[in-house]
Amino acid sequence: MRAFRITDWGQQPQVVAVPVPTPGRGEVLVRVAGCGLCHTDVTLPHIPSSVGSRLGWRVPFTLGHEAAGWVAGLGPDVTGFAEGDPVALVSPTSCGQCWHCLRGLDSSCPNGLAGRGYGRDGGLAEYVLVSGPRFLIPLGSLDPVTAGPLTDAGATSYHAVRRALPRIQAGGLVAVIGVGGLGSYAVQFLTLLTAATVVAVDTNPARLAAAPALGASSAVADLSGVKGTDAVLDFVGTDDTIATGLAALRPGGVYGLIGAAGGRLKAPLFGSLPRDGEVFTFQGSSIADLHDVISLATTGALRTDVQRFGFDDVQDAYSRLTAGTLDSPRALIVF
Amino acid sequence: MRAFRITDWGQQPQVVAVPVPTPGRGEVLVRVAGCGLCHTDVTLPHIPSSVGSRLGWRVPFTLGHEAAGWVAGLGPDVTGFAEGDPVALVSPTSCGQCWHCLRGLDSSCPNGLAGRGYGRDGGLAEYVLVSGPRFLIPLGSLDPVTAGPLTDAGATSYHAVRRALPRIQAGGLVAVIGVGGLGSYAVQFLTLLTAATVVAVDTNPARLAAAPALGASSAVADLSGVKGTDAVLDFVGTDDTIATGLAALRPGGVYGLIGAAGGRLKAPLFGSLPRDGEVFTFQGSSIADLHDVISLATTGALRTDVQRFGFDDVQDAYSRLTAGTLDSPRALIVF
Amino acid sequence: MRAFRITDWGQQPQVVAVPVPTPGRGEVLVRVAGCGLCHTDVTLPHIPSSVGSRLGWRVPFTLGHEAAGWVAGLGPDVTGFAEGDPVALVSPTSCGQCWHCLRGLDSSCPNGLAGRGYGRDGGLAEYVLVSGPRFLIPLGSLDPVTAGPLTDAGATSYHAVRRALPRIQAGGLVAVIGVGGLGSYAVQFLTLLTAATVVAVDTNPARLAAAPALGASSAVADLSGVKGTDAVLDFVGTDDTIATGLAALRPGGVYGLIGAAGGRLKAPLFGSLPRDGEVFTFQGSSIADLHDVISLATTGALRTDVQRFGFDDVQDAYSRLTAGTLDSPRALIVF
Amino acid sequence: MRAFRITDWGQQPQVVAVPVPTPGRGEVLVRVAGCGLCHTDVTLPHIPSSVGSRLGWRVPFTLGHEAAGWVAGLGPDVTGFAEGDPVALVSPTSCGQCWHCLRGLDSSCPNGLAGRGYGRDGGLAEYVLVSGPRFLIPLGSLDPVTAGPLTDAGATSYHAVRRALPRIQAGGLVAVIGVGGLGSYAVQFLTLLTAATVVAVDTNPARLAAAPALGASSAVADLSGVKGTDAVLDFVGTDDTIATGLAALRPGGVYGLIGAAGGRLKAPLFGSLPRDGEVFTFQGSSIADLHDVISLATTGALRTDVQRFGFDDVQDAYSRLTAGTLDSPRALIVF
Repeated sequence: MRAFRITDWGQQPQVVAVPVPTPGRGEVLVRVAGCGLCHTDVTLPHIPSSVGSRLGWRVPFTLGHEAAGWVAGLGPDVTGFAEGDPVALVSPTSCGQCWHCLRGLDSSCPNGLAGRGYGRDGGLAEYVLVSGPRFLIPLGSLDPVTAGPLTDAGATSYHAVRRALPRIQAGGLVAVIGVGGLGSYAVQFLTLLTAATVVAVDTNPARLAAAPALGASSAVADLSGVKGTDAVLDFVGTDDTIATGLAALRPGGVYGLIGAAGGRLKAPLFGSLPRDGEVFTFQGSSIADLHDVISLATTGALRTDVQRFGFDDVQDAYSRLTAGTLDSPRALIVF
Repeated sequence: MRAFRITDWGQQPQVVAVPVPTPGRGEVLVRVAGCGLCHTDVTLPHIPSSVGSRLGWRVPFTLGHEAAGWVAGLGPDVTGFAEGDPVALVSPTSCGQCWHCLRGLDSSCPNGLAGRGYGRDGGLAEYVLVSGPRFLIPLGSLDPVTAGPLTDAGATSYHAVRRALPRIQAGGLVAVIGVGGLGSYAVQFLTLLTAATVVAVDTNPARLAAAPALGASSAVADLSGVKGTDAVLDFVGTDDTIATGLAALRPGGVYGLIGAAGGRLKAPLFGSLPRDGEVFTFQGSSIADLHDVISLATTGALRTDVQRFGFDDVQDAYSRLTAGTLDSPRALIVF
Repeated sequence: MRAFRITDWGQQPQVVAVPVPTPGRGEVLVRVAGCGLCHTDVTLPHIPSSVGSRLGWRVPFTLGHEAAGWVAGLGPDVTGFAEGDPVALVSPTSCGQCWHCLRGLDSSCPNGLAGRGYGRDGGLAEYVLVSGPRFLIPLGSLDPVTAGPLTDAGATSYHAVRRALPRIQAGGLVAVIGVGGLGSYAVQFLTLLTAATVVAVDTNPARLAAAPALGASSAVADLSGVKGTDAVLDFVGTDDTIATGLAALRPGGVYGLIGAAGGRLKAPLFGSLPRDGEVFTFQGSSIADLHDVISLATTGALRTDVQRFGFDDVQDAYSRLTAGTLDSPRALIVF
Repeated sequence: MRAFRITDWGQQPQVVAVPVPTPGRGEVLVRVAGCGLCHTDVTLPHIPSSVGSRLGWRVPFTLGHEAAGWVAGLGPDVTGFAEGDPVALVSPTSCGQCWHCLRGLDSSCPNGLAGRGYGRDGGLAEYVLVSGPRFLIPLGSLDPVTAGPLTDAGATSYHAVRRALPRIQAGGLVAVIGVGGLGSYAVQFLTLLTAATVVAVDTNPARLAAAPALGASSAVADLSGVKGTDAVLDFVGTDDTIATGLAALRPGGVYGLIGAAGGRLKAPLFGSLPRDGEVFTFQGSSIADLHDVISLATTGALRTDVQRFGFDDVQDAYSRLTAGTLDSPRALIVF
């Protein structure tokens, strides 16, 4: 089969032919229907081998951590799934046994540094191996072709919204900074799960124009004029969005930092952080988050806007992603 | 002014002429715009004087605990309000100083047994006295004529929904038993605040027919065929609704008993209550609940279906309420 | 090796010779150091085969679900443990993949009906097979001989206390009904995790006498004179303890029913349940509960009072357990 | 009577003679038994009149916001208290009617900028006026002479601990940075309310020596060697304590910033804040916090270490406070 993979440390990914894997005990083989592309994929070729080794990564490996498809083969001892079942593949890895995993906090699992698409073979291939049923979510009536982005962009946004929910009041005000691949889901989750007014913040006019259709009440280029919000979810994370995001909160408000742009807070913490409020950050999502997202998507309430590409065009799709010239928040490779 | 009041213990209420009250220090006089009628009003004339005395009630008193109107006079030391301001009147009474009140749990205040419409002069009169700004909520652009039912039917339902929210999952299932004056609000709050499917349960065909417009996905005469719910809110409270309500829950589900029909649970508690779930009951609501409800109503998201009556028809309105022949879930006296 | 097992449906358990099991892929063999005896063990021989089959149980099986010991053999693919490691064995079974397990709510897992000591071979044998590392907790410096009761009696009590904690105030009042095998742990957990006064309730004078050493401030034969408690944890569960337990709560208090005596609530629910409070029940505990309990025991803060018996005296130990003539809350078989 | 007061903007406080105030409607006069001194008092004379005016402060005013005493006079309409009752005076001011106050979040009340000891007459006088019963807590058997520090140092520390509690595990690890007037209470609350190991961090050898008596398991000069904490409460708040405090947290841990030293976080927020954890800050405490603290102190579990001074020595006491030469974490003026 064909796979889009990093063949060695420091090498740009390319399409190569590899054998279809065979599922071992407890494993499941999945035929990929669609796989979303993510900004972090583009950074992976630049990771030094020393860092990769420390993370437990192996080269070569196939890219792609936003995949869904159909069960194509079951290893010994796998129950609960049958060939042909449509499934989403949990994007983050976790051990299932540590302190965090046992509490449903598997997005903090310390044993999840290497996984499908980052140090192990991922979903940008015709088939992908999944290490166990724990990492498969039945899709029911959902189309696996477009379900991939729910597993990372969707679930990560949902994790952020879930953390903020207890501080969002009925009839309140929330803001989402950056309504691209992740934030566009956050706007939808907030619309579905709260009775607050949602403000979309983005410097990209096309995204601002698309925000009302996601449920946003207003769309602005920056947050400087907005005050008294219950929650700000920052999917950008620059010095500027951190400063304006914190300044927009009411006492008791919550600021969630998801964007990894590396911004700093220049002012003293005391006086900048919301009084009696909360600041949080995280990476990824828990498996339960994805279960919820799939459950929500099954009701038909969620829209996933993607630009579709064939596998032959995967290089072109990444180029557009890097250049910011995609027509949608997310690029999707369809097999 | 005219007032509809209980003139002595055991007497049926009647319209009598009384002086317009004068606000003392810290008090506010409100001209009533509209006042909802409640089933509990009908039971008040039958309360023995011994019970009334123990509750600290005084006769005569004017009925009506679901009122809104306009500020008509301010006693000394009142700030934050001006004549003409449209306001809703907090329905339950509370002391503001006890253990419960200081934690925002004023619906459990032990010092709130006598209040406007139950032992003190209520809102079924042209003017009503409010003991302080704590019990007034600014209505902003909302019409005070129809805002009254939000203060009791609305806020009580909201209190129930708020308690159940943490156990309602995205894409989950919830049921509301009894979609009358209170439950019709609960269906709306659940639709606005969750991404769960809402099932309305009622034996009244007219109410079932009205449920979809409130946001219910389905409407059924009884809950016996429904399983796996995250939450059941029971606004009826008979032996039957208790048994079927508990049986409809998933493990970890929540059952809220709001209806005061006096039902019992016949089966052993262990095995009947939801495993690892939660059962709760309460009366009334907190002031913060009403703030949230008003805030929500201001967004235009909430509908209040009432049948309007003039003050001259107050006896007739109560008769229809008692007979169950109202055209709407709630009767409203408009001044 | 010798094992104390139920050889067929309806048969009393007996000591028989069985082969030492061999760990398969992912499994771990444990040499048992000690195993606690539980009241439920005594009821297992009376379970009809029809019920046993429905639960997925197989006969014969070895009794014992409160075991700890040392790792004695590792199946292929097991990492994180080595021969000789002292370990506690998680008592309840769970699948690790369902909605509940993924949220750390594995005590509600629907796939945990058959497990070690109930339908599968348990810990009343020299060796016991564990299905994976997920069910092993490292004991560190704790003695595995006496750690067994922590896995069921300890973890179940902890689960109850953890549920009640948010409603227990600093300087408040809590009551534990039944301070035997489970409740004696609950008194200790409450003493360690709250700054509330703990009242022990038991009809057994010896248990009342032992309560102060566990941290109880007072010990009484019944709860009828106690009012205003934040929490009542009922490890008995008769009509009487349910009625007095609920009556002892303050508004906003919490009643936890752990005792499976099958009691009923005779009065109407509305008015009997605590206003704005909470009622819950459950069975078993989560793996995270046991992690916490082991962590707590490692600090030396927890005492486990047991009467020790050799394996030759297992029948005698069960006889005393049934007759209520043990010298301690818990009987322990030491290997 | 004599009072220690700021007579005009920019003036050092001095002892002057003023009339004993008379309680108006709803007000209560309290004879002061003892009043704690606080670092913030020393900064008040340096506040520019423009800032003071914006805060709504009036000069002259008497210092002292940590007072307790006995009820000495009741204005009209005050119920629930009698002359001679020992009471603690709630230190922060709040309106009782705003969004925050109605939810028990009165430490975020925007209407509490001027209060007893900061812009209004405080407790460094023989008598002090309290604006209503809401701000009085009955002391029961507690001595009002030494209860003052509970109202600010105690309640503020308690607020911090209460915020952190949900993330502190049984058998876990927590750190308190700065174990002076406030932090010494935090160590005690953590010891009483958790089963975690408490590490005290301070550069002052005398405070480190005193930490074990408060319940700390260990006492260190800095936190750099400590990792994996559930919670860090930082009562200092410099660049250094912020950096080491955040670095000491486990994933999911909580960092509370109480110290107002104005420190900054130099590193990018993403990667510095605890993954899936929580960062919070606040000022003051809620009235409910003080109720809890008094309730806890009444059990005898809490120690307040003070150095006592007579009112004649108030200037000397402040000098020692400023110079850091007190023998105790807190100075107390005894009347």
